[in-house]
Amino acid sequence: MGKPYVRLDKDQAAVLLVDHQTGLLSLVRDIDPDKFKNNVLALADLASYFKLPTILTTSFETGPNGPLVPELKAQFADAPYIARPGNINAWDNEDFVKAVEATGRKQLIIAGVVTEVCVAFPALSAIEAGYEVFVVTDASGTFNPITRDAAWQRMTQAGAQLMNWFGVACELHRDWRNDVEGLGKLFSEHIPDYRNLMSNFDYLMQK
Amino acid sequence: MGKPYVRLDKDQAAVLLVDHQTGLLSLVRDIDPDKFKNNVLALADLASYFKLPTILTTSFETGPNGPLVPELKAQFADAPYIARPGNINAWDNEDFVKAVEATGRKQLIIAGVVTEVCVAFPALSAIEAGYEVFVVTDASGTFNPITRDAAWQRMTQAGAQLMNWFGVACELHRDWRNDVEGLGKLFSEHIPDYRNLMSNFDYLMQK
Amino acid sequence: MGKPYVRLDKDQAAVLLVDHQTGLLSLVRDIDPDKFKNNVLALADLASYFKLPTILTTSFETGPNGPLVPELKAQFADAPYIARPGNINAWDNEDFVKAVEATGRKQLIIAGVVTEVCVAFPALSAIEAGYEVFVVTDASGTFNPITRDAAWQRMTQAGAQLMNWFGVACELHRDWRNDVEGLGKLFSEHIPDYRNLMSNFDYLMQK
Amino acid sequence: MGKPYVRLDKDQAAVLLVDHQTGLLSLVRDIDPDKFKNNVLALADLASYFKLPTILTTSFETGPNGPLVPELKAQFADAPYIARPGNINAWDNEDFVKAVEATGRKQLIIAGVVTEVCVAFPALSAIEAGYEVFVVTDASGTFNPITRDAAWQRMTQAGAQLMNWFGVACELHRDWRNDVEGLGKLFSEHIPDYRNLMSNFDYLMQK
Amino acid sequence: MGKPYVRLDKDQAAVLLVDHQTGLLSLVRDIDPDKFKNNVLALADLASYFKLPTILTTSFETGPNGPLVPELKAQFADAPYIARPGNINAWDNEDFVKAVEATGRKQLIIAGVVTEVCVAFPALSAIEAGYEVFVVTDASGTFNPITRDAAWQRMTQAGAQLMNWFGVACELHRDWRNDVEGLGKLFSEHIPDYRNLMSNFDYLMQK
Amino acid sequence: MGKPYVRLDKDQAAVLLVDHQTGLLSLVRDIDPDKFKNNVLALADLASYFKLPTILTTSFETGPNGPLVPELKAQFADAPYIARPGNINAWDNEDFVKAVEATGRKQLIIAGVVTEVCVAFPALSAIEAGYEVFVVTDASGTFNPITRDAAWQRMTQAGAQLMNWFGVACELHRDWRNDVEGLGKLFSEHIPDYRNLMSNFDYLMQK
Amino acid sequence: MGKPYVRLDKDQAAVLLVDHQTGLLSLVRDIDPDKFKNNVLALADLASYFKLPTILTTSFETGPNGPLVPELKAQFADAPYIARPGNINAWDNEDFVKAVEATGRKQLIIAGVVTEVCVAFPALSAIEAGYEVFVVTDASGTFNPITRDAAWQRMTQAGAQLMNWFGVACELHRDWRNDVEGLGKLFSEHIPDYRNLMSNFDYLMQK
Amino acid sequence: MGKPYVRLDKDQAAVLLVDHQTGLLSLVRDIDPDKFKNNVLALADLASYFKLPTILTTSFETGPNGPLVPELKAQFADAPYIARPGNINAWDNEDFVKAVEATGRKQLIIAGVVTEVCVAFPALSAIEAGYEVFVVTDASGTFNPITRDAAWQRMTQAGAQLMNWFGVACELHRDWRNDVEGLGKLFSEHIPDYRNLMSNFDYLMQK
Repeated sequence: MGKPYVRLDKDQAAVLLVDHQTGLLSLVRDIDPDKFKNNVLALADLASYFKLPTILTTSFETGPNGPLVPELKAQFADAPYIARPGNINAWDNEDFVKAVEATGRKQLIIAGVVTEVCVAFPALSAIEAGYEVFVVTDASGTFNPITRDAAWQRMTQAGAQLMNWFGVACELHRDWRNDVEGLGKLFSEHIPDYRNLMSNFDYLMQK
Repeated sequence: MGKPYVRLDKDQAAVLLVDHQTGLLSLVRDIDPDKFKNNVLALADLASYFKLPTILTTSFETGPNGPLVPELKAQFADAPYIARPGNINAWDNEDFVKAVEATGRKQLIIAGVVTEVCVAFPALSAIEAGYEVFVVTDASGTFNPITRDAAWQRMTQAGAQLMNWFGVACELHRDWRNDVEGLGKLFSEHIPDYRNLMSNFDYLMQK
Repeated sequence: MGKPYVRLDKDQAAVLLVDHQTGLLSLVRDIDPDKFKNNVLALADLASYFKLPTILTTSFETGPNGPLVPELKAQFADAPYIARPGNINAWDNEDFVKAVEATGRKQLIIAGVVTEVCVAFPALSAIEAGYEVFVVTDASGTFNPITRDAAWQRMTQAGAQLMNWFGVACELHRDWRNDVEGLGKLFSEHIPDYRNLMSNFDYLMQK
Repeated sequence: MGKPYVRLDKDQAAVLLVDHQTGLLSLVRDIDPDKFKNNVLALADLASYFKLPTILTTSFETGPNGPLVPELKAQFADAPYIARPGNINAWDNEDFVKAVEATGRKQLIIAGVVTEVCVAFPALSAIEAGYEVFVVTDASGTFNPITRDAAWQRMTQAGAQLMNWFGVACELHRDWRNDVEGLGKLFSEHIPDYRNLMSNFDYLMQK
Repeated sequence: MGKPYVRLDKDQAAVLLVDHQTGLLSLVRDIDPDKFKNNVLALADLASYFKLPTILTTSFETGPNGPLVPELKAQFADAPYIARPGNINAWDNEDFVKAVEATGRKQLIIAGVVTEVCVAFPALSAIEAGYEVFVVTDASGTFNPITRDAAWQRMTQAGAQLMNWFGVACELHRDWRNDVEGLGKLFSEHIPDYRNLMSNFDYLMQK
Repeated sequence: MGKPYVRLDKDQAAVLLVDHQTGLLSLVRDIDPDKFKNNVLALADLASYFKLPTILTTSFETGPNGPLVPELKAQFADAPYIARPGNINAWDNEDFVKAVEATGRKQLIIAGVVTEVCVAFPALSAIEAGYEVFVVTDASGTFNPITRDAAWQRMTQAGAQLMNWFGVACELHRDWRNDVEGLGKLFSEHIPDYRNLMSNFDYLMQK
Repeated sequence: MGKPYVRLDKDQAAVLLVDHQTGLLSLVRDIDPDKFKNNVLALADLASYFKLPTILTTSFETGPNGPLVPELKAQFADAPYIARPGNINAWDNEDFVKAVEATGRKQLIIAGVVTEVCVAFPALSAIEAGYEVFVVTDASGTFNPITRDAAWQRMTQAGAQLMNWFGVACELHRDWRNDVEGLGKLFSEHIPDYRNLMSNFDYLMQK
Repeated sequence: MGKPYVRLDKDQAAVLLVDHQTGLLSLVRDIDPDKFKNNVLALADLASYFKLPTILTTSFETGPNGPLVPELKAQFADAPYIARPGNINAWDNEDFVKAVEATGRKQLIIAGVVTEVCVAFPALSAIEAGYEVFVVTDASGTFNPITRDAAWQRMTQAGAQLMNWFGVACELHRDWRNDVEGLGKLFSEHIPDYRNLMSNFDYLMQK
């Protein structure tokens, strides 16, 4: 009776990074800032690594919300970049939806700030439009855990799948043999405990 | 297979404020009182801002439950005010249901004290009566997190959508261009981090 | 699409108190012992107050699990008491099921120790047998929050409604006018904040 | 309308222990290491006690992930042991699926590290393949509670049942009379509070 | 170099209960209300049990602070009762100091609401006046843990000893043989885990 | 052997507000922003209410640290305002020290952002210079609780007294009879629970 | 000005295990039972490993407090065992003090249940008697963190040194070269993360 | 009466990094790994930035403890590196003490893993030897908060000053005018919230 398993596929997925702006980030308090920065950059790196079509969008970036964080802008210099003039739900912006459609992908990996608005609104709209939605919970942030939990329930209720960036990377990669080094590098750079395992292993192998 | 996306619409929504009474508020311990006070007033301000029909109701206010908090009474001086003589579920009170029907709205935004009774009971009844229900989780409070979580599961199970006041405001507003100043003021007065962003921005713009 | 609202009714409900035994209680660590003791006694008092048929059962009480807590035994001296010789799921015990059937009630209010076994097993069995099940989450306890949360998800998935004792009392009572004093006494004895409101009110009324 | 009750049956269940490797265990931070070690060994002991077919599998164990923890290897020396050369989802490995099929069991009890990958991926695949899946939440671990909660929601959404090792043991055993001593020993060795109850009981019985 | 051990002595100690008023109690949020109520009543019971001179005092009780909780008033009907007309620090009230002096005791056991004012102020003043002060931390409450921790540091810095009611009872009693039943009753009524141990013990002894 | 009691005196105390700037405030994560904003404004209001000499200072306000929050600037329009050109420890700035000396006060009430730098540095310097220092812990903020706790220990070790704004107000006021309305207004505006007590009281008095 | 460094020395230290009884252990709720059991056994193992004179004592073990946990009794079969007939402070028992004196040691390592009584009382008495006291905080337990923190402050104030079992072992051992295997075994058996490091290391060394 | 203010001075301070080894880091569970990694690297960067003499040391690095994390080794390639053959307290190693003495500095900034051993032992020894010790609490880690808190109390008792890396940097720098860019870079790279403030500021300045 449950929801059938729709599995992330690197040839069917696109990444939507919604409103990771320098001002809005100061609103995020349901996750520690060092951890959150790391998670967002990890998601960016996995999008690059798997060569997933990626779309950037910002909300009212000439005002207090601030510009997109420079790292993301630099990393996805050639990606569609939709600076929304006012639409709060990115899906209300035609250019954004066209950019999504242009990817030809039907699996959308969404992260953003803040979770219950910038993530949940386009997630719900995309499901309504027939997409399969995967929310990257740990690269999305909001005011506090109560707000996050309510947003999660609303999205789950509608059929979104909640994941973390590590799960996304693993489900896309499928098999270490596809590329041990590449995935290992991704994990080493964004999971300190994994990095220690690898450093330790390399040290012992060299002896 | 999930629940279809029903989106808040400022022409279809009404707000129900249930039992925010001076006595009952001392029962609320799942959220800090400074934060809770702010959230309730923020919800009130958004109701006014979006000119949503708003209904006030209280439970047994001549006894220990105490009167409605004066701020709400003052802010909605012309709103229907149903001092229920005894019904615990506001929906069991005919005047209350009539007041809801009189708004002609089919989307109900509900908040109250305590969550599992004053919010959950009318929420479940309203769903049964064919309304779409949006619970403002952070303007509703109860004894402790265990109690809150159980109430949330019961309401979600029945089809209610869990939101926070910020999400409600954003979903109603749709586009910053509809009124930058008005929404900005709402956020500045009720989100300290946003206020700081705006103060900072104004300061730099003036230089 | 959600679950239809089944409302507790004092003429249709029975209470099942499962394995609140002196030994097993030392296993409960997801809720503070002072609070838990209060919640269990509050549930007992509401069962008495609403004259709900109540059934007591214990698991292997001659061994380390220990006897039923004496307060419950005394308060429900005439209630069916099924000391199960070994069945872990109370519903596997014929006498217990017969006692439930003998009440003629179709709404079962269940609480017990530990949540994922003594509550969840009979809850799932009772749903299977066609009963509507209401779990009193705060009068049920277990090893830790992880264990509790998993148990809650399993029971919700099956269609149980999660409540707390206060919500149960309010849903059964319906209207303060049915008996202000009786309900007030129940709340005064088991909710310190409510007691303070009442003491304060009485003090001022006397002046 | 809820999910029908599928009950664990010791003649229909098999246990899958996925990637409890010495390196990967350092990633587990949503549960205390003393408690987690105890839970994993408790699950192993119950698998042995109920003589459930058990399958061990590891991911890339010659690298930094490290070998299977020696206790599990020793305890299940004769169990199928699938050292996956690269498949992240154990269900993508033919030998693993064959081993599962060879058990003839349709109820799969799964635990592993980390929850959202090593547990969730085969859980979702197994459900798709027609199995009934029981996740042992407290013998599975991951990076942090946010990650765990998201994984739980994804698995519940698909129809998996969330349990803990104690619930699994109780649901399999059904009746203390089947073997008091054996079950008692399992609990005494893995639940300190239960051990104390038993020690206390024995002490008083001897007097 | 540390502070010399000054030990509570039932012939040298007096108890000061400061401002446990029905209104002020709603400010206490650093401890659960069920637990706090129990702790305050336990302290009252131990004061009675050890026949310690006890002094009650309230702050501005005819206003919103509310009256002393009725239980304390009843239990110590003959104790000095100083309804301070306005002094915030009870030690600034001459009648209060005289009542303390009249006890002839030099060890003061203090508890009250709120910790950093109603407890800390007289505690600091009493130390200055040459008394040895014992703060009953768990029968004193305040707005939140930050506030409590700061108050504790201020009092410790001045030389107050921080205790809990259980520690106070044990240090006063010295030896179970002085009265097993009396102390046991005190613990049984205010420590649910202890009560269970006793109920279990009695049950087994009777068999 | 402890530290002698030095009591705040409204004729001897001055208030130092250090670096409550719109940018720096986004660094504060050891206390909720709604609560923190309230506490800072409460401290400002008590400074005004008790007519304490108040000194404002900022660090590098023309850069990313941002300007002083406008509310404080407006409220203390005539207060000494030292925009430090670069000194991190405000006490290293001659103008600041002169402003402190000009007050003629020897009791310094200090709050600021962030606790371990902007508060702790001048606090330690002021103690060295012979002042008695009172840190308003809940109107000071920093990155996280670990950072706060370490800063508290360093300041306590040096002899600073840790307080909260409520304790400061109470210690300064001494006696409600000095002005019931004024103090009541301060509490009503900054302590929601107190406000409810007062609203409730007024309501009942009017009846 | 601080306390001079008194360092644990295996030729000068003795271990006092106070009231780790099967009943009393159910009172311990400031630390998880799996972790606590492990810590107590680790302390016992280090006492044996370093051949430290060890003294066992119990409080009223023929009543509800229950007997000493059997593991400790077995492990220290030849140690002085003082079953105190009633003294709550073990130091009030002459046989206990004589047993301590008979060791000839002046450094006392103390752990017990509950922290603020069974540990703190003899700790304070021993300091008074001229001993240097080291409290093993993580092998001592009590009702809740508030109670623990107050007990810690009282003991620190008097000059006790707070440690954990791991710190005690390291300070006693001084140099890994004294015995790599023995200390490694102690850590492997009681620190799961260390065990994993060792298993991993051994695995790679064998390859 | 408090400890006199000893202020960090960049011409008098040296940094000791103790046992940040790839294996030992898996033991650190009182602080999130992303945050901890950042803090350690921030401390390293400030040591480089202020050109403080820095000493590296490891414990038994050829065994399971693992090698020093490669980043630190690379960053301080020319620093004294004492691979201790077995001494647990680094101060017991002559080479280490000589290296400290060779710096000619009397202020020691210490961080390490684990806090209560690798940090506390040399900290206490260094104080005994006449050094002023500053513990970088957030670049030091251990098993859990209980263990950390006990270690902090022991070190404070002996006179160590507890700081965080940000406080150390600020106390050393004294005045932004000494080098705005350098300090700004340090903060931008290790404090995400500060980085956002700077990115935002730069963006607006460019417009």
